[in-house]
Amino acid sequence: MNTIKTLLILVALSFLNAQAQELQSPNGKFVMYFALLNDGTPTYQLNYLNKEIIKKSKLGLELQNDSQSLLNDFTVVKTTPATFNETWKTVWGEETEIQNHYNELAVLLKQNKTEREIIIRFRLFDEGLGFRYEFPQQKNLVYFTIKEERTEFAMTGDHTAFWIPGDYDTQEYDYTESKLSEIRGLFQTALTTNASQEQFSETGVQTSLMMKAADGLYLNIHEAALIDYSCMHLNLDDKNLVFQSHLTPDAQGNKGHLQAPCVSPWRTIMASYDARDILASRMTLNLNEPCKIEDTSWIKPVKYVGVWWEMITGKSSWSYTNDFPSIQLGITDYSKAKPNGTHGATTKHVKELIDFAALHGFDGVLVEGWNQGWEDWFGQSKDYVFDFVSPYPDFDVEGIHEYAKSKGVKMIMHHETSGSARNYERHLDKAFQFMNTHGYEAVKTGYVGDMLPRGEHHYSQWILNHYQYVIEKAVDYKIMVNAHEAVRPTGICRTYPNMIGNESARGTEFQAFGGSKPNHTTILPFTRLIGGPMDYTPGVFEMDISKVNPNNDSHVNTTLTNQLGLYVVMYSPLQMAADLPENYNRFLDAFQFIKDVPVAWSTSKYLEAEPGYYITIARKDKNSNNWFVGNNNGVNPRTATISLDFLDKDKKYEATIYADAKNADYKTNPQAYTITKQKVTHKSKLKMTSAAGGGYAISIVEIK
Amino acid sequence: MNTIKTLLILVALSFLNAQAQELQSPNGKFVMYFALLNDGTPTYQLNYLNKEIIKKSKLGLELQNDSQSLLNDFTVVKTTPATFNETWKTVWGEETEIQNHYNELAVLLKQNKTEREIIIRFRLFDEGLGFRYEFPQQKNLVYFTIKEERTEFAMTGDHTAFWIPGDYDTQEYDYTESKLSEIRGLFQTALTTNASQEQFSETGVQTSLMMKAADGLYLNIHEAALIDYSCMHLNLDDKNLVFQSHLTPDAQGNKGHLQAPCVSPWRTIMASYDARDILASRMTLNLNEPCKIEDTSWIKPVKYVGVWWEMITGKSSWSYTNDFPSIQLGITDYSKAKPNGTHGATTKHVKELIDFAALHGFDGVLVEGWNQGWEDWFGQSKDYVFDFVSPYPDFDVEGIHEYAKSKGVKMIMHHETSGSARNYERHLDKAFQFMNTHGYEAVKTGYVGDMLPRGEHHYSQWILNHYQYVIEKAVDYKIMVNAHEAVRPTGICRTYPNMIGNESARGTEFQAFGGSKPNHTTILPFTRLIGGPMDYTPGVFEMDISKVNPNNDSHVNTTLTNQLGLYVVMYSPLQMAADLPENYNRFLDAFQFIKDVPVAWSTSKYLEAEPGYYITIARKDKNSNNWFVGNNNGVNPRTATISLDFLDKDKKYEATIYADAKNADYKTNPQAYTITKQKVTHKSKLKMTSAAGGGYAISIVEIK
Repeated sequence: MNTIKTLLILVALSFLNAQAQELQSPNGKFVMYFALLNDGTPTYQLNYLNKEIIKKSKLGLELQNDSQSLLNDFTVVKTTPATFNETWKTVWGEETEIQNHYNELAVLLKQNKTEREIIIRFRLFDEGLGFRYEFPQQKNLVYFTIKEERTEFAMTGDHTAFWIPGDYDTQEYDYTESKLSEIRGLFQTALTTNASQEQFSETGVQTSLMMKAADGLYLNIHEAALIDYSCMHLNLDDKNLVFQSHLTPDAQGNKGHLQAPCVSPWRTIMASYDARDILASRMTLNLNEPCKIEDTSWIKPVKYVGVWWEMITGKSSWSYTNDFPSIQLGITDYSKAKPNGTHGATTKHVKELIDFAALHGFDGVLVEGWNQGWEDWFGQSKDYVFDFVSPYPDFDVEGIHEYAKSKGVKMIMHHETSGSARNYERHLDKAFQFMNTHGYEAVKTGYVGDMLPRGEHHYSQWILNHYQYVIEKAVDYKIMVNAHEAVRPTGICRTYPNMIGNESARGTEFQAFGGSKPNHTTILPFTRLIGGPMDYTPGVFEMDISKVNPNNDSHVNTTLTNQLGLYVVMYSPLQMAADLPENYNRFLDAFQFIKDVPVAWSTSKYLEAEPGYYITIARKDKNSNNWFVGNNNGVNPRTATISLDFLDKDKKYEATIYADAKNADYKTNPQAYTITKQKVTHKSKLKMTSAAGGGYAISIVEIK
Repeated sequence: MNTIKTLLILVALSFLNAQAQELQSPNGKFVMYFALLNDGTPTYQLNYLNKEIIKKSKLGLELQNDSQSLLNDFTVVKTTPATFNETWKTVWGEETEIQNHYNELAVLLKQNKTEREIIIRFRLFDEGLGFRYEFPQQKNLVYFTIKEERTEFAMTGDHTAFWIPGDYDTQEYDYTESKLSEIRGLFQTALTTNASQEQFSETGVQTSLMMKAADGLYLNIHEAALIDYSCMHLNLDDKNLVFQSHLTPDAQGNKGHLQAPCVSPWRTIMASYDARDILASRMTLNLNEPCKIEDTSWIKPVKYVGVWWEMITGKSSWSYTNDFPSIQLGITDYSKAKPNGTHGATTKHVKELIDFAALHGFDGVLVEGWNQGWEDWFGQSKDYVFDFVSPYPDFDVEGIHEYAKSKGVKMIMHHETSGSARNYERHLDKAFQFMNTHGYEAVKTGYVGDMLPRGEHHYSQWILNHYQYVIEKAVDYKIMVNAHEAVRPTGICRTYPNMIGNESARGTEFQAFGGSKPNHTTILPFTRLIGGPMDYTPGVFEMDISKVNPNNDSHVNTTLTNQLGLYVVMYSPLQMAADLPENYNRFLDAFQFIKDVPVAWSTSKYLEAEPGYYITIARKDKNSNNWFVGNNNGVNPRTATISLDFLDKDKKYEATIYADAKNADYKTNPQAYTITKQKVTHKSKLKMTSAAGGGYAISIVEIK
């Protein structure tokens, strides 16, 4: 061997190792440094505007049955810089076009003893950093099991965080605002019961995690493109204020089974001194692969009503009969059963909803409780719980299809799986064929309760693989999917835009289960919505649930116009008007906003934002020059002036303003609102007041 | 309430409880006693010919999260006797007609405190006892989780047992013959390595367990109709010589999730002083439900050859290439890969097998290693391991189909799942459609290695449910299933006769993996075959495996005519001629028996039987008056005279006798055989000698 050559290589390598690799964002505001510690442990550090915002943090993975793991003993083989800038068209979204602009650094590392290679790929956008682990094809690293991912996010101070408890099975918690150092003390208080839940640490929290530093910096940590990997939580070392990645385990406690070549999801860190930048960022979508569906013409935003809120409030039931101690599908004979008189999904009632939808211009009607099995669907670890093709005797599938068709309304299917994933997969083809046959173009799936196979979690790799399977299978049948209780989204809707919605957070239903915090929706856009749209099901006009069901004393912790504001604040291509027709009929003037507000947008402007306190957003209709503004407010009443300078300079508009009345209050007077109209231009400024737990909505219609 | 009436009921109940309930077999030889202990624990006791053969044994189930369980505090509500006698026609089997004759006692029990009811149903046949637990529909027992089934089988002495280690994942062990009290001491010696295995106790053994008492009584314990329940093992309390049921756990350690109304499998005890009665019993089939397939015309016994033994011996490979460190289906490009030169399933070679099959009158040709993925199919906990529809570049599916069709031969598909059950289910419809398209009527499935979902076992309820799903799905496509590494059969082939075979024991392949004990096949008919036919793949003529593959020094521990005897001794509607064509071509005179022996029978006679030592069976061809006799012998050379009195009195026959030569020995001289012909009638007696590890085969052809 040529010793001089070897020497040169060694010098070059040691030089590479000694010196940190630097990566700048296109606008130069972010600078990321990659370096190896003396023992060959990879680290990164992130600066924003010349200030450290992520302290030097370790990277790596601990492997099962592997003493070396992928933690240290690395040498930098090569670093490859790159830059990327392209603009892509959305199928649906907050904008019609999205710019994907970043500088990249791919660090190829070799582990000295094992001769294994990994790449850590960093992408620095103007809004923040994304990085992931890549495992190229090689001899010494083929199949491997993750014991734990050891990615660190070292905080620079005791930031304020908007957090929910880290949990393997649910995200349906109210947010707690506290210092990082206070999480442990508040953890038990932050817990509320759920149909399936398992926490792992009293300093464990979920992503997307929104934080605010003492100097006013907003920080957001999440992940992007979570495919064939376990969902990441963050476990805080609250002595050192360092977050450590904590993956969801499988039934055997392992965190992931990988086969090279493969990649991890992206770990994302967004930062800005302006909270609106976090809302406006498209980094999460940009870190996902481009759309894989060739023909997307069948994917359309949907505004819908449904047979749903009446069950959530307890007014009516999903189940058809009270005759049976339990149900065995295919054996239990419903035809002879006595109807319980509370069943919501009757043909007659569904047709009423279709009439209501047609009258007010809604696209669709969701019906839950239409299929056999609801008498004992929950909490029994029941494998064969639903077959997704057998309607109750009082639900005339084809008659309803024909009726809806005649009224220009689409039916939306509901597939509750009760967590029985294998059973759903077994019936999936027939269920989707059944939907095709009966004119259903969208499905709301549900995963309430503990998962089957038993021991798996809602966010473990095996189950995530199931959700992905359903999305991809739905493409074959041109079906749009809105998955509830599935894993929080991570921008996968860019790649599979037929995933038009997800729940994956505490939705409106909790307003009928005791209520959510009044500022809940001023946090969700900074957390849950970072990964994709939420089927939040807004539009509840009757806040006193006892008026819907005398046995339910829950209270909806918002004002009525806060509910209207949600249609703009909480972006989704899927928007429900959740309340009962009779409640809308009492407030038809306010209901007009829900009728008018689009579900497809061409652009969005983030007028005001402070997590936990207020959000004001303006969006432009995709199909007209009209704009719509929405505001949600926290517990402190607030007055602020917004400028309409986003309007076209050469156009005139009429604004209809749906606002809290002076005496409005989410608790004591939620239905006090005013509706006013005024002419506006791009020069207009509006002084708007939102009540405690209030908000407003404005439609701004071009005068032609 | 009428107190006198109450009193009368109480008296009647206490009478019922105090007095044991008695049940007799139709022939009166068996008497079973049911009784409650003072604490309300149900028990049974079994006598044969006025002698106790099962001592008083407890019955019941321990439930998870249920302090009471279903163990005691029972009262007898009602006992319902019944008798049943019918004869049913088999689709295939050892006989064309089977008599199902039993007396029944259904004991309805009520648990005093919980008011839960269970039925213990006993069926007493002339060959033994079957009983099961039934859980009727009721309010207080709907969904429940089994912590352990607590069924006892109390032995009357320290019997000799033919046992294999109890294991959640494999049955592929050699049998050990020992006293019950010796099991613990021999347990570690009895263990051999397997691709997936987990034992639970050093006195844990599998069913069907064959035993022999000191007084010459043969006893057999097994189960029947194992559907939607966990597979039962037997754990011996070797102090008291009481076997206790031990079910296979799921990933969380539970033993079964049940929903009433439902039933357990039948627990079976057969007994006789003549071992042949155990072989002749149809009790296990009779305890299963009648055939659920309406049109069974497509289900046919099959004699086949295959591209298989060459891979088992290591002569050729399942895999196509050595180019890739690992395979990702759909991504790995096989078209550019360099063939490894050892791939067995090439179009050219398969056509040679088709020619051989056609020349010698075989029905089918099995091909393993035809589909992409074999380069890294095993031991990687790989989810997407095969897709079952993508052939290797050198396997021309349709060309082979056409060629086979032109030769009157059917192809047999192979679906190795590598234990990845979800992946198989996801591809099942397309895989079966692919089979239909390409003329495959039978599939050999495989479950080598640890199961996925991870943490589940080969014999846990969840996975058993998968095997059953495959069988039932195959009915939709008119496909016959031969499942390897699946759970041991329990007579389900009566209900689903498209399940034409199973492995579920140590098959011939182990003769190429180091060899099996010479007496192995004198035990299997008493154990593994009690539940249904085995795809044992007999017919190996070259015992020195190094002659097939110089790198394999394994030895087949039988003589050549022992291999011929297997075709009669080991009943199966699916029989392979496992060896390579070149080895058959060297012994075409002996091969003639394999060509002649039927796979469909009209009746069977059990001439001689001693487990571990010898079995001689005569069977009559279903389609002629010809008879075939097979003998397998253990390690001691043996001479015995058999009577041909089963032949028709008014017919004459020519017998062709394939027997061990005088100097034959399984180890030193396995290929030494004689073929002689002689005229025989029903009066004939034949003095037959079997070598150590030897055996013989006789075809008895009617002279017309």
